[in-house]
Amino acid sequence: MKAYLEARRRDITAFLDAALAEAETDFARVSPWGADVADRLRSFTLRGKMIRGALVGLGAQVFGAGADEDVVRCGAVVELIQSFLLIHDDIMDRDRERRGEDAVFYQYATLAREEGIEDWYHLGEALGTCVGDVTMLFAFDLLGDLGCTEAIARRVRRLFSREITWVGLAQMSDLYYGETTRDIEESEILDLYRYKTGRYTFSLPLAVGATLAGRGREETSRLEDLGEKLGIIFQIKDDELGLFGDHDRIGKPLGSDIAENKKTLHRKLLFARAAEADRLKLASMFGAHTVSESQVELVRALMEEYGVRQDMERRVASWAEAAETDIESIGALPATDTSLLTELLAYNLERNR
Amino acid sequence: MKAYLEARRRDITAFLDAALAEAETDFARVSPWGADVADRLRSFTLRGKMIRGALVGLGAQVFGAGADEDVVRCGAVVELIQSFLLIHDDIMDRDRERRGEDAVFYQYATLAREEGIEDWYHLGEALGTCVGDVTMLFAFDLLGDLGCTEAIARRVRRLFSREITWVGLAQMSDLYYGETTRDIEESEILDLYRYKTGRYTFSLPLAVGATLAGRGREETSRLEDLGEKLGIIFQIKDDELGLFGDHDRIGKPLGSDIAENKKTLHRKLLFARAAEADRLKLASMFGAHTVSESQVELVRALMEEYGVRQDMERRVASWAEAAETDIESIGALPATDTSLLTELLAYNLERNR
Repeated sequence: MKAYLEARRRDITAFLDAALAEAETDFARVSPWGADVADRLRSFTLRGKMIRGALVGLGAQVFGAGADEDVVRCGAVVELIQSFLLIHDDIMDRDRERRGEDAVFYQYATLAREEGIEDWYHLGEALGTCVGDVTMLFAFDLLGDLGCTEAIARRVRRLFSREITWVGLAQMSDLYYGETTRDIEESEILDLYRYKTGRYTFSLPLAVGATLAGRGREETSRLEDLGEKLGIIFQIKDDELGLFGDHDRIGKPLGSDIAENKKTLHRKLLFARAAEADRLKLASMFGAHTVSESQVELVRALMEEYGVRQDMERRVASWAEAAETDIESIGALPATDTSLLTELLAYNLERNR
Repeated sequence: MKAYLEARRRDITAFLDAALAEAETDFARVSPWGADVADRLRSFTLRGKMIRGALVGLGAQVFGAGADEDVVRCGAVVELIQSFLLIHDDIMDRDRERRGEDAVFYQYATLAREEGIEDWYHLGEALGTCVGDVTMLFAFDLLGDLGCTEAIARRVRRLFSREITWVGLAQMSDLYYGETTRDIEESEILDLYRYKTGRYTFSLPLAVGATLAGRGREETSRLEDLGEKLGIIFQIKDDELGLFGDHDRIGKPLGSDIAENKKTLHRKLLFARAAEADRLKLASMFGAHTVSESQVELVRALMEEYGVRQDMERRVASWAEAAETDIESIGALPATDTSLLTELLAYNLERNR
């Protein structure tokens, strides 16, 4: 799986390099910021792992199609959309670091501060918002040049515009859940996992790939269903790594999900099961601006003590079983090779960063 | 012209009403915020004057085509894009009012404050950013369903994606010019007028209309050239109204462009011409957070004294002459009726709000 993903990443990188070089000339004509934007966008996007973009190729390959120009182009579009989402998210979450460097908005804020501009942080946010907007529009511009038939191109564009609309709506829930004191239902958390992460990380690129391979709604919707399950597993693993993982390896500060009071399924179950005294302790830690190592240790111990970790592992196993059933049903369709899907599921279950 | 614009506004309103009712069901499935977003977006967009959207119809009519479904759909897309831009702009500019009500982000901020959320203003900004993103994506989703030939649809989509990319880049210049102390060149100001306002207000909708009427690059690019001139006139008139207009009628606080230190051509000329003592006085007013009525009077008097107002009027007249030449050249093309373009130019020159 790693080698497969790496090969797709190379294709997408080459495509983006050329597309952004062309964009640079166009952007520079319009605004003194143009060349700078194309440049930062290239650097930021090329630093991504590009797993989402690579999954377009995987979706096509399941149905016997190779990584042709449309597949690579759509992979690049997926990665640009990922950049757009991260650029805006970092402003909303006030995250100053991303992909090992300053977040895009914070790069602009730093420039403004260095120029002595009083309102530098806000100007950075505003310029970053614009860069996100430009990135999204540039991604849709690239979708205008697909080489496939119009019927297929239309379905591909629709997949993109609908799924990313849904990400925006789910992000609103996520933001609100992060701030409200009201109790969040398990079904609301699962919807968030589905629409904010799962579908756009897995369902969208896989379905785009299948569509480019000439398959119809029946086949693409089976891949979308599988994608939701892969996405929920991905998000639960992400939450688990945030709690139990090696924070250097995953690139997040220790205990940041606790400090941010992120409304995870783990948290939900723990609060539901904890005895009164423990719940009070937990309430004082979740959402506190800083969380110490010993507090993280306590949360970890309580997760084990109340069987939350084990229960979540059971749930992951059950989502994985459902995913296997989906893969079997896709394998029953004519002219398919699901071996990469099986590998993808295993890769998702085993990841440790 | 007024009756023509009003008729187009009715078509677009009916289209948006239906499209957003359908979107509401879709959005509600994804997020508890979904229905609320569709609802606020409808209310916000329908309160617009919809001149930009109406110009799609005008561009088509110049070449003998009526307001068919594609024309109305593209007019609605123009208005949704206008909503998206305003929603994000109000966050960047910290404007709490728009179209006679609370700005969209501020509506969410108010909800958050009423729920007792500590970080209410920031949550409002973040939710507003998401609504802007969703609006833009929804606009592109609507562009997926054009009834015209694929060759035409492709050119229409390209017009939209490129022009709005340019607006985003020009907005970055505008934000930066508002904060920097460095001198802004006249050519930079004109580029801003061209790409942030002119092209997207006039060139884009007119060119989309001409393209839908089946005309090629030659004809659309002549409309785009005309649009730039109309846009520059529009922006200069806007600046003039900000200084000399009736602030109740134009819906802006008295002297707000002075307080915001907006880098207008009027300001540029005035600073270039003012004697040292006057320049010092002016420098203390432009960018001050509040500007009194007597200070506004002083700026007005100096604009007259140094001949800036008269000079800007001469420039507008000269842009108008160039626009007339463009209209003549369009009129020389086969099967055209440029009477609406002539009316549009007059309407633009006469507007007082």
